[in-house]
Amino acid sequence: MKIDVLTIFPQIFIGPFTESLIGKALRKKILRIDLVNIRSFSKCKKVDDRPFGGGAGMIIKPEPLYDAIKSTGVKRKNGLYKNPYIKPYVVYMSPQGRTLNNDIIKYLVKFKHLVVICGHYEGIDERIVNYIDEEISIGDYVLTGGEVPAIVLIDSIARMLPGVIKEISSVQNDSFYNNMLDYPSYTRPAIFRGHKVPKVLLSGNHEEINKWRQVEAYKRTRERRPDLLKTKVCRTKNEN
Amino acid sequence: MKIDVLTIFPQIFIGPFTESLIGKALRKKILRIDLVNIRSFSKCKKVDDRPFGGGAGMIIKPEPLYDAIKSTGVKRKNGLYKNPYIKPYVVYMSPQGRTLNNDIIKYLVKFKHLVVICGHYEGIDERIVNYIDEEISIGDYVLTGGEVPAIVLIDSIARMLPGVIKEISSVQNDSFYNNMLDYPSYTRPAIFRGHKVPKVLLSGNHEEINKWRQVEAYKRTRERRPDLLKTKVCRTKNEN
Repeated sequence: MKIDVLTIFPQIFIGPFTESLIGKALRKKILRIDLVNIRSFSKCKKVDDRPFGGGAGMIIKPEPLYDAIKSTGVKRKNGLYKNPYIKPYVVYMSPQGRTLNNDIIKYLVKFKHLVVICGHYEGIDERIVNYIDEEISIGDYVLTGGEVPAIVLIDSIARMLPGVIKEISSVQNDSFYNNMLDYPSYTRPAIFRGHKVPKVLLSGNHEEINKWRQVEAYKRTRERRPDLLKTKVCRTKNEN
Repeated sequence: MKIDVLTIFPQIFIGPFTESLIGKALRKKILRIDLVNIRSFSKCKKVDDRPFGGGAGMIIKPEPLYDAIKSTGVKRKNGLYKNPYIKPYVVYMSPQGRTLNNDIIKYLVKFKHLVVICGHYEGIDERIVNYIDEEISIGDYVLTGGEVPAIVLIDSIARMLPGVIKEISSVQNDSFYNNMLDYPSYTRPAIFRGHKVPKVLLSGNHEEINKWRQVEAYKRTRERRPDLLKTKVCRTKNEN
């Protein structure tokens, strides 16, 4: 998969894209990320301006952003696209978007090429919405810009790409993968500051252990996130 | 405010903590962040182990994490705490936690000292829950570790700290601040590739502009996130 990240703060991505799983996916060439600086598509490097109608904050101008989006879909000098008409799927990280969940991630993982736009300041000029495929929000809170949400999105996608996580069962047991929270986990020592590991986990009886884990995952979901259980029944069994 | 981030991947934070608003808050000394490497609290640097009861993935061991948490609350050599008993508020970034929203952020902003624990791999030993104040999730999706969620949390907190954003009206008009999405914004040029800016914004009539913005924010919220409007009526007017 190839991801172009359109941003005016490319330096933010240094740590997150070199460490951990995203870094691993890049080194293994399962994922390729190009940081595209929106500023380089602007005359005199000006990318923002005051909003029409007044008010606080600055808005990212439409032209440099449009040119940056356009640049990702045309044939490049390095011949990345054999077909110059291949259109990437363009996502804009925005608090106004659809709230990210595992279904959206499973959908995005299928694309060969994503473009992720990071807004900043008070956001982007609304007219750019005509050139994007989807607005995605990572949650009901406000951040400085779209850069951190883009890291969230790319991290969540990277771990779903085949070959990034060795044990695929690890992904399938995750919280939310089946609309359930995860069961509690324990490791050595068996007694830590007076707190014991649940007996069943030391029993070696795998049937009992699985049953206990299912019950614990259900109990925890019912207690903390009953809303997840409601959506569970609506979903088909065979989705990938 | 002081935030200790407990992690086994401190390098992830390099970009996000030096750039943009978090970097600004650090340079202005409104915020201080210490990266605490959990690994340095472990003999022979081993921080993870196989889960009791079997299964995929590794679990972060309880002892080094407990010692790392403890280290944040005691009197330090540099005399940061005059009172050695000041207890920081300890947050664990976890998909099992309460979903982050602006109310949680407004609550956390009031603390002088936060400790943010980043899990990794399959999570942390469940018994550590006895030593934390709150589990926070940033959304219903799974990420590689708690580092990226910690960046999300700290970014959302940093922009609420007095003195970080110049125009406080900018924060108060944000999406979700009043359980409404933001209205659309436009900047120059007035016509961009055939798309015009709504006339009212060019009118100079501020009353009309405000009315239009309120209507647009409401329309957008009703269309995209009717769930937000339901919670709006339940909230008190005078919360800060």
